[in-house]
This record gives sequence, structure tokens and C-alpha cells, in this order.
Amino acid sequence: MSAPPFFDITARDAAARAGRIHTRNGVIETPAFAPVATFGAVRGVAPEELGAVGAQILLANTYHLHERPGEALIEAQGGLHGFTGWRGPWLTDSGGFQVTSMADRLVIDEDGVTFTSPLDGVRRQLTPERAIAVQEALGADIAMALDECRPADASGEAGDSASLRVRAAMERTLRWAERCRAARRCDTSALFGIVQGGVSEPLRRDSARATAELGFDGYAHGGLGLGEDPERRCGLLAAANAELPDALPRYLMGIGPPAEILDAVAAGVDLFDCVIPTRHGRHGVLFTSRGLLKLRNARFRDDGGPPDPDCDCATCARHSRAYLHHLLRVNEALGARLASVHNLRFTLGLLEEARRAIAAGRFDAFRRGVR
Amino acid sequence: MSAPPFFDITARDAAARAGRIHTRNGVIETPAFAPVATFGAVRGVAPEELGAVGAQILLANTYHLHERPGEALIEAQGGLHGFTGWRGPWLTDSGGFQVTSMADRLVIDEDGVTFTSPLDGVRRQLTPERAIAVQEALGADIAMALDECRPADASGEAGDSASLRVRAAMERTLRWAERCRAARRCDTSALFGIVQGGVSEPLRRDSARATAELGFDGYAHGGLGLGEDPERRCGLLAAANAELPDALPRYLMGIGPPAEILDAVAAGVDLFDCVIPTRHGRHGVLFTSRGLLKLRNARFRDDGGPPDPDCDCATCARHSRAYLHHLLRVNEALGARLASVHNLRFTLGLLEEARRAIAAGRFDAFRRGVR
Repeated sequence: MSAPPFFDITARDAAARAGRIHTRNGVIETPAFAPVATFGAVRGVAPEELGAVGAQILLANTYHLHERPGEALIEAQGGLHGFTGWRGPWLTDSGGFQVTSMADRLVIDEDGVTFTSPLDGVRRQLTPERAIAVQEALGADIAMALDECRPADASGEAGDSASLRVRAAMERTLRWAERCRAARRCDTSALFGIVQGGVSEPLRRDSARATAELGFDGYAHGGLGLGEDPERRCGLLAAANAELPDALPRYLMGIGPPAEILDAVAAGVDLFDCVIPTRHGRHGVLFTSRGLLKLRNARFRDDGGPPDPDCDCATCARHSRAYLHHLLRVNEALGARLASVHNLRFTLGLLEEARRAIAAGRFDAFRRGVR
Repeated sequence: MSAPPFFDITARDAAARAGRIHTRNGVIETPAFAPVATFGAVRGVAPEELGAVGAQILLANTYHLHERPGEALIEAQGGLHGFTGWRGPWLTDSGGFQVTSMADRLVIDEDGVTFTSPLDGVRRQLTPERAIAVQEALGADIAMALDECRPADASGEAGDSASLRVRAAMERTLRWAERCRAARRCDTSALFGIVQGGVSEPLRRDSARATAELGFDGYAHGGLGLGEDPERRCGLLAAANAELPDALPRYLMGIGPPAEILDAVAAGVDLFDCVIPTRHGRHGVLFTSRGLLKLRNARFRDDGGPPDPDCDCATCARHSRAYLHHLLRVNEALGARLASVHNLRFTLGLLEEARRAIAAGRFDAFRRGVR
């Protein structure tokens, strides 16, 4: 019996696909959502709870873990799997986006990103080679190539100077992607290339084609979810996907609102991550089958019903809106935790339903029903 | 078959006792420890985890819940049991100690305690009758009479003015205890009287004798753990216990360090509560079979061993000192939660062992081994 391929597609419904990503630490049924465990823990939620809500893979932030506690320590403690107790697959970002958004005195040149750490004030450099070395030390099942995100002010319309900067960043991302491929030292991590190109369809198409020519285990859509219109985003995803190998997984980074996830699935995306289920949870905002519920609102003060009557999570089985409202109002940590568990279950359950709908050939009807 | 008594003693070992408190929501094997759920939740810990670590009864703070969300709301949501999801027994304090330590512009007179709420600036009054009404609305299985704590600066040495104030507070506590008895409207809560008298043995003996004469379902030792020498405290407990009915439970309020709990058990105390397992947990201080472990300390940075190798809790089964050190250092909420779960299990396990040791007639040897 030969080893299974990294990805196999089990069902299609128009451009949407259902499939399986095979890693040495487990299989991920796609389309899939990776909860974010920035520092190696999903805020306030334990590994066994993540299993209970249906998580299959977690995302850790390479830059945060590089700063604290450092990848060498995590490697010595058995990688992310041994260190954190989450034994399933781990996805890591490259650290590039986090450095760009968090660090001071940023200089981006051909070599890499040089920055001053906000933690200790020390000047450091993140290169493509370093990004791969750190992710391999963390024990990532899926690692990401280092990319240069488009400048946040760039519209990407042809001919203006912002557009030139977006093109330059996209082209540098390609050169860095090639260096990342060459820097791989272990064959236990899959490596994904990243499509850039701002909000320009031609640029993103060029980026996808050239990244695919380099050859990766999967492909991510980067630099999106930064304020662009969600409808325009669907066009950008579809245009790039048309240039990517059909047989390999596609990952949309950092997008979490339910309707936006489903639209991207319809455009052929297989994998997602986002902080929104836990961030919304901490703020008392719940995803439910009837829309967003802002549980800190006074009208939930004496509402004895479950947060979401259609949800099968531990929070909805055991606790009322009134209790969560109270816990959130008095800033009791259990409130954020219970709300986060529900939001994770809602998001992961949504993707379970999406997989079933794709297999049954009724994904479009399902997607329209969620609006 | 007749109903069981409120308390039955199943074993004795010198002055230590093992027994059972029977409430309508469950039996509490004593000596027992009640984790503190100030606002109706043990900080960051869910009801099912409390069951898993062996909790039998929780303590809620009446004053906090009176302010937010209010006892009327909790009563309408099925009392603390229905509102919080902890279906086992609930113990409530009277609110007196919390008001005294938290509120502004405090005036204590024969009627009760008048204060300005730090929450909304409104002037309120807590009387013995009100303390009972609030606790009954909360659905307490064990309620406490309103007491006047000794002034914090009072040494209680005979003859000085502080001593006179301590005696006056003790005597007022007796009059309030009588009013609390008369104010009971439901027979589903047990009511405990509170022994006061500062650190004066004669005063505490007088207080115990007079409180016992009034007649309660159990008796608490109040106003201790406020800086007095633990050895002196044992003398005070023994002196008061000698005046209390042997057949009824005795509760030492607010004391949590393991050795101090066991010393009080040796003096005949049956019930405890304290915030220390969760407060220490949030600060990364763990009780272990080898003494206190300050997990934020740099020496635990790469310690892959379990927090306490002799512990059977979920935290010790699944996570390392290095992981907890990291989570605590980056202020990740899961760290406080995992440490709190361990400290609760340690404390509750200690009392399980104490019960077994009393039943086997080897409590003194057990107690000496814990030092």
C-alpha cells in the first residue's frame, strides 16, 4: 500500500471541493477551519475542548512563539505537539505578517525583514531561510513561505505608484518563496506558497501562476481581509484559483465571518484560520443559527434560554444567555471561555455542514440559507 | 425510613471528625473544602471541571451577587443551582465581611451596616433580615448569619479600648444572629451562626457558648485568618469548639493553606472555604506534594515534567511545567485556568486523604507528613 497523497478530493459541487489533507499527525477533512493558538494555546480553551468542538488543526503564530518561549525550547519539548498537548496537526504562519503589523522600525529589503522587537528592543532579522528554520523547529505540519504583504494603502489600480509597490511586493514574495523551498531541511512539514498582488485581479493571477510554477504542497491567498469588499475578494480568489493546481489545497488566511468563509468555499478554498471566534467570544459576541448575538446587551439579562438553541456545544447544553450575560458583565474569565467554545463550535460545525452539503451536491442552497 | 440528620459523624480521631452534611442538593463528606465562586463562577473553571476535581459544595459571595446581577434575577433563573449550572450544594456568606472590606462610607449600628455601593454610588443597608432574605432568594443550601467582624486593628487583649470594641462586636453579632434566626422564611436552607471575639480565647469561648444557646444548624468561626499566628488560631478554634454542640458541623471561614486546613481539622473543624487555590493559580503559584511551586520562576522554563508528579488532575496528566510557565509568562488565560484546576484538585484531594486518615485512625501521622 502506498502512502496517501497529501491531499485528495472526495467530492465537488461547482467550484467547491470536499477533501482530505493527510499529515503525519492526522487527517484534516476539508473545507476546514483552524482555530488560532497564537502562543500555543487558543485563548482560555484547553486541547480536549478543542477536540470536543471538532477542531482538526490549529494555527500557531511563528513570530510570537519565536519571541516567547523561542523555537529551540519548543523543539526540545517535542515541538508544538509535545509542548502544548495538542497532538493533532499544526499550521504555522511565516511570521511575516505579524512582524509587519507589530514590530517597530521595519526595514524590508531583498534579504528579509529587519525590525526592532517590541519585547526586548533588540534588532532582529526575519529572512525566508529563518522563517522556514523556525517553523521546522516548531514542528509544523503545514508551514508557510515568507511573503511580503501589500502596503495597506495600496489600491492596486494599474499604473499608480501604489500599484507598482504591490507588484514589487508580489514579485519579491515569489523570490522569497523560491528561497523558502530551497531552505527546507525536513520533509515532515508541508510547505505552502502564498499568492499576493493586493486587490488587483491580474496581479493575483500572475502571482498564482508563478507561485504554482515553483511548486508547493498547497497555496495560500495572502493579503486579503484587509478592508476589501467581500464580493471583490471572491473574484480575486476565483481568478487566482484558476491558475493554481486543482489537485492541491488552497488556504485563505485570516478570514472568519461565517458568510465570508462559505463564499470562499464556493470559490474553491479548502482551509481557513481566524481569531474571530475567540475574539468575538471575549467581547460577548456570539455566532448563532439566527445571526450575531451581542450577549452583553441588556435584553439578555434575564433570558434563560440557551445561547443558540440549534447548537450542540457544551456551553449551549449547560448554560443560559442570562448566565453568560452576567459573567461577561462582571468580567469573569469563564464568560469569555464559554462564549469562545460556542463560537468555535459554531464555526467548525458550519464547515462540517459545508462538507456534507458539497458531498450531497447542495452546497449553493446551504450557503444561501446561512445568510 | 426517616430523613437523615443534617450532619452525621462517621469517624473520629482525637478531636478530628469525619462525617456527612446532608442537603437537599447533595451530601458533603467532611472535612470538606468549598471552592469560591464569587460571582457564581469559580474564576475560569467550569462546573464539570469542579466535579472532576472532587468539589462537593461551592461558596458564592452574597454581596457581589446582590449587586450584580441581583438576587431577584438569580431566584427567577432557578436560584444559584439553575443559574450557574452547579447543581450540587451552595454555601453563601452573609455579605457582611465583603461589605465591610469593599464598600465606602461604612456606618455600622444596631440596625445593620449602611454603606455606599462602589458600583453605583447608591446608599444601601444590609440588615440581618436582609442578609437572610438575599441568601434565601439565591437558594443557598447553607446560609450564614450576619456578623460584625472585629476591627482589623484590635488585639483583643483584655482591658484596652480595642478589646472593648471586639467585645461589643461579638455581642452585637449575637443579637444579629438571633434576628437572623427569626427572619428565616424557608426551611430548605441550613443556617449557621458565627463565633466572633477577635483573638481573645475567653471572648471566643463566650461567643461560642451564647451562639450555641441560640441554636443553629452549624457554627462558623469568623474573623480569623486576618493576620493572627496560626498556632494561636488553633487554640482559639479548640476553645470555641469545646463550647459548640459536638453533633453539628463547624466551619472555618476563609482559610486555605494546606497545613492550616489540616491543623484546623485536628482542632475539630469540618468545613472550609478559601480563594487561595484560584488566586494562587492566577499568579502561577502551585500547591504540590513537594511544597509550593512558583511556576513563573525562570528555572521552570524548560522543565518538561508534570506540575506535580503525584497529582491525578487533568493539568498534571496533560501539561508540563514548561508549558504552564510559558502560558503564565505571556498572560494566556489558559495558564491561570490550568493552574487553578491543579490547586483545586490538590486542596480537595488533601481533604479526601484527611477523611481517609481520620477513618483509619492515623490523622495525626498524615497531618505531620504534609508539613
